[in-house]
Amino acid sequence: MNASILTIGDEICIGQIVNTNAAWIAERLTRIGIEVLIHSAVGDERNIMLNEIDRLFDTTDIVILTGGLGPTHDDLTKPVLCEYFGDELILHEETLRNIEQIFIRRGQSVSERNKEQAMIPSKCTPILNKVGTAPGMIFKKENKILISLPGVPAEMKSMIENSVIPLLENFLQESKTPVVLYKSLITSGIFESSLADLIEDPTSFLEGGALAFLPSYRGVKLRIGVRCDDFNKAKEKIERLEKILLEKVGKFIISTNDEPLDLVIGKILKERNSTVAVAESCTAGLLGAAFTEISGSSEYFLGGIIVYSNISKEHILGVKAETIEKYGAVSEETALELAVNVRNKFSSDYGISITGIAGPSGGSEEKPVGTVWIGIAAQNRFLAKHYQFNGNRDVVRQRAVGMALTMLYEELKIKE
Amino acid sequence: MNASILTIGDEICIGQIVNTNAAWIAERLTRIGIEVLIHSAVGDERNIMLNEIDRLFDTTDIVILTGGLGPTHDDLTKPVLCEYFGDELILHEETLRNIEQIFIRRGQSVSERNKEQAMIPSKCTPILNKVGTAPGMIFKKENKILISLPGVPAEMKSMIENSVIPLLENFLQESKTPVVLYKSLITSGIFESSLADLIEDPTSFLEGGALAFLPSYRGVKLRIGVRCDDFNKAKEKIERLEKILLEKVGKFIISTNDEPLDLVIGKILKERNSTVAVAESCTAGLLGAAFTEISGSSEYFLGGIIVYSNISKEHILGVKAETIEKYGAVSEETALELAVNVRNKFSSDYGISITGIAGPSGGSEEKPVGTVWIGIAAQNRFLAKHYQFNGNRDVVRQRAVGMALTMLYEELKIKE
Repeated sequence: MNASILTIGDEICIGQIVNTNAAWIAERLTRIGIEVLIHSAVGDERNIMLNEIDRLFDTTDIVILTGGLGPTHDDLTKPVLCEYFGDELILHEETLRNIEQIFIRRGQSVSERNKEQAMIPSKCTPILNKVGTAPGMIFKKENKILISLPGVPAEMKSMIENSVIPLLENFLQESKTPVVLYKSLITSGIFESSLADLIEDPTSFLEGGALAFLPSYRGVKLRIGVRCDDFNKAKEKIERLEKILLEKVGKFIISTNDEPLDLVIGKILKERNSTVAVAESCTAGLLGAAFTEISGSSEYFLGGIIVYSNISKEHILGVKAETIEKYGAVSEETALELAVNVRNKFSSDYGISITGIAGPSGGSEEKPVGTVWIGIAAQNRFLAKHYQFNGNRDVVRQRAVGMALTMLYEELKIKE
Repeated sequence: MNASILTIGDEICIGQIVNTNAAWIAERLTRIGIEVLIHSAVGDERNIMLNEIDRLFDTTDIVILTGGLGPTHDDLTKPVLCEYFGDELILHEETLRNIEQIFIRRGQSVSERNKEQAMIPSKCTPILNKVGTAPGMIFKKENKILISLPGVPAEMKSMIENSVIPLLENFLQESKTPVVLYKSLITSGIFESSLADLIEDPTSFLEGGALAFLPSYRGVKLRIGVRCDDFNKAKEKIERLEKILLEKVGKFIISTNDEPLDLVIGKILKERNSTVAVAESCTAGLLGAAFTEISGSSEYFLGGIIVYSNISKEHILGVKAETIEKYGAVSEETALELAVNVRNKFSSDYGISITGIAGPSGGSEEKPVGTVWIGIAAQNRFLAKHYQFNGNRDVVRQRAVGMALTMLYEELKIKE
């Protein structure tokens, strides 16, 4: 069973916003064994939309379409779907009541513009929107399915979880089709090309399966993919391949169940009842934000100080003025004092510091843009390491956060 | 002149990573007047890649292809392009020297795997990669262009800026084709549907142009789009439409040159020599990170305290224990004390605080998930406002950051 994802909206086409919906939907479909073949995005234009819907409905069993369902004139998905399926709009009473209730809760009255959102094509099965006003729509034709959802992420996600996934799971069970399964092994502290050298020629053991190397700022992910006639065979094959990879590069693998580095670190800290605090200069809060992406992080993440100015490094975190004067704000000495002092200030088990030059300005010959010092302070140990990151401001900041997490993980491993 | 963007990679198709490259490239092409019609993403599979390259090269004048150029076995772009263009790989000496130099700088020797990256199709014009090892490739055929670039964002961006944009600008000048131009007006402090009501029926004044409403966590963007035979006519039409919109909703517009809210705030703070500091609980650094996305923000952003634990709220920012006991950590009183105290601690002109329940756990009947208090302290004024945000943990945190920036902007306007 395969699928395509179609995103509607000029804002995507011209690059004003990043298409995060497609990735989220693809991940969710892949998890239940549906193979996503194509992601496509086109603008709010009738003919292009019609062509693309036709092509994708022709190529794949399931088409998930998002966007173009808002209350303004540039939202064309409903008229285009009516045209494609030869249908017309009718009032859907339950949707209208849902819209009215949302407005009552907001203490507002329903405008005509919003009432129109309760008009849906007569041939579709509507999906109730528990978060917003535009309903989702399911169309079936010749054993294929097209599902149209709002582009607002919270609304789309709620409908996928509560309505679309159960529907597709049924659809999958009823039709006997090959299964595609994936498994990810997450590594830390090793480059993509070194991993590839250790694994050698993967075709010698993959039995026709696939192995992908997916580098990110926080480590390289190895993803095994297999396609089999039935679910159990696919699962057995994945396990065989995983075992071979664990023999080859096991010491770099930090998780075999798709848990990212920040989650793995969080689990270790929780288990040991250890806590952490951060002192951030060039990343200015990104490391704190990374720790707290995870619900429940308050058990081990106490907080931090954003020491963006030199004055704040001195006055708020007590870095010595002569340290900054003699070695500079971006130096081993400053990184160490920041890490040690933030650990003391928060009475945490670990203190982590990041100080660097994210660019584009602020670099010098001696300390070019991308120079970053990261410090870690533990009970009886402290250290700081120097990095030279490539990339623009955003990339340097993201890499610094990834490396700070990697360093903390290494530190936690030593203490094991 | 129109274009399509094709992203290659299983990791995109199955949703393991978000396709940020496509948005970045689309934005860059749109800026020089090229209309991006289609974004497409397919996995690392020979036949699907061939079909998609063929379709896009058939549909659009320019195809920008990223990904699949790495050193591992799952990177298929070069063999597929050889097949599509009936070409073969030859050694490119300059690329080989570039790769050798990169490894010398890293203090490593070049492996066979990396040397293979200097093999390129004989019919293409290579683009030197100044940041990494894989070269870009330009193919021309029947007055159309296909450009293949690495998927690593820093490498792709450097090649687009330095080589692809100059090439396409030449290509555009040589061929006389219609121009599509866009202009964005950024609003703050008003909902999408209220904006639509104020603007009324846009077709009555758009003269065939397009108007899109693009909501984000930091405000709604109005984007005007026009298509004309020549550049000057398009520019005049954009100006006429802009004037009409300014008459209708001008008081909500904060910038007419695509400057986002954080940049507009930064400019005002710089002009007035004012400074800001933040106290963040549930956002844990995201507001600090938002302020410092902008290079030069050190002129007005001093730093902040991440007060994730209640103890840190009390011990580090001096919130009274009885305030938290009586009203809770998520309350007007705590938000006010956080804002006032962080302003004092950093001696800044403005202090901003965010305290809330991002979820999924931690909510109660009285204070459900999504409850957020945002405080602002200025010299003679302080206030805190209550918000109830919809969405998951990430969305609640992003909305809180957007609203904190909006509140600061309103505060700066009052002082004008």
